[in-house]
Amino acid sequence: MIVSKKITVETRGNGDTKDITDLVEDQINRSGLSSGVVTLFVVGSTAGLTTLEFEPGAVADLQAALERVAPREAPYKHHFRWGDDNGHSHVRAALVGPSLSVPFVEGRLTLGTWQQIILVDFDTRARRREVVAQILGE
Amino acid sequence: MIVSKKITVETRGNGDTKDITDLVEDQINRSGLSSGVVTLFVVGSTAGLTTLEFEPGAVADLQAALERVAPREAPYKHHFRWGDDNGHSHVRAALVGPSLSVPFVEGRLTLGTWQQIILVDFDTRARRREVVAQILGE
Amino acid sequence: MIVSKKITVETRGNGDTKDITDLVEDQINRSGLSSGVVTLFVVGSTAGLTTLEFEPGAVADLQAALERVAPREAPYKHHFRWGDDNGHSHVRAALVGPSLSVPFVEGRLTLGTWQQIILVDFDTRARRREVVAQILGE
Repeated sequence: MIVSKKITVETRGNGDTKDITDLVEDQINRSGLSSGVVTLFVVGSTAGLTTLEFEPGAVADLQAALERVAPREAPYKHHFRWGDDNGHSHVRAALVGPSLSVPFVEGRLTLGTWQQIILVDFDTRARRREVVAQILGE
Repeated sequence: MIVSKKITVETRGNGDTKDITDLVEDQINRSGLSSGVVTLFVVGSTAGLTTLEFEPGAVADLQAALERVAPREAPYKHHFRWGDDNGHSHVRAALVGPSLSVPFVEGRLTLGTWQQIILVDFDTRARRREVVAQILGE
Repeated sequence: MIVSKKITVETRGNGDTKDITDLVEDQINRSGLSSGVVTLFVVGSTAGLTTLEFEPGAVADLQAALERVAPREAPYKHHFRWGDDNGHSHVRAALVGPSLSVPFVEGRLTLGTWQQIILVDFDTRARRREVVAQILGE
């Protein structure tokens, strides 16, 4: 069986990181499915999904590493296209990736105790983000 | 229901980036399935799949960031094994990742307007790439 | 049909990289399913899953690239929280990602000849790791 859900998250952009674990687990509970996989996909090319121990230190450390890979102030060719200022946002989002698949068993996500599902918004402004949760299971 | 498809893409290697969105959506339409998840997987250890706003600037920016992480001219231990020159290709592919799962609803991928599915070929020569598209849905 | 399996892997931590391809294929064979997708998910926030040509050179090259992105000796804010020493482990794990979805057709994973499924343990000590393998297929 397949159940399609949408999760909406308000962000401040600029690396704003949201723990969406409870929102995902809530959708699984509502689906009535017991065992399967939830495929999460964030709509848009300037945000990403992964897991992290959700505490302010680790959140800041992840941003610092991405600043090494795609510094905010580097010259981006993407800026020439639209006059945008978010070249680093596109690169970081492509590297972290837009999709995450998480198994659930007996209605519970198979996460570790210190492992949360996070949405990171790399864009340079506040955004309303949509995460599609496609739940396949039985 | 499960439908297995293959998508073949010719690349020039060296970071050549192909927008495969239409090819994926075409396979979903042919499958006759309305709602589900397509799991894409690129065969081989020197290419990756992710999403990006597919325009030449963002494509070049992603390459520039990967050049910081795994510079083409750095010394790679992989080169000692086979006399290969593509150590950076293996590292970049492992970081971007070979698989991507994208939901579809009413026959449409749940992508953003400026979000395309891309295949990036990191190898140092032209390749014919195979992407497996496993479509699970109803 | 859905079959839930667990794969246990002992690691030495510190980037220890295990080829789990045979363990995954074994679980698919035991499931009796012929075609579908196996979603792999490593429990915990300091390990990751991806594919790589599994040979010591490429394994070391991947570590060297991650040392550029998240150097072991950089200052991590995560360390202030618990007195931990594994800030780099959390960052590397979040970037590589905890989940990987691999199609299988006629009972075989659709991997390339030189492409193996790897678990990388970024933590700073030996760990017993659990990988959930959720097999959806027919």
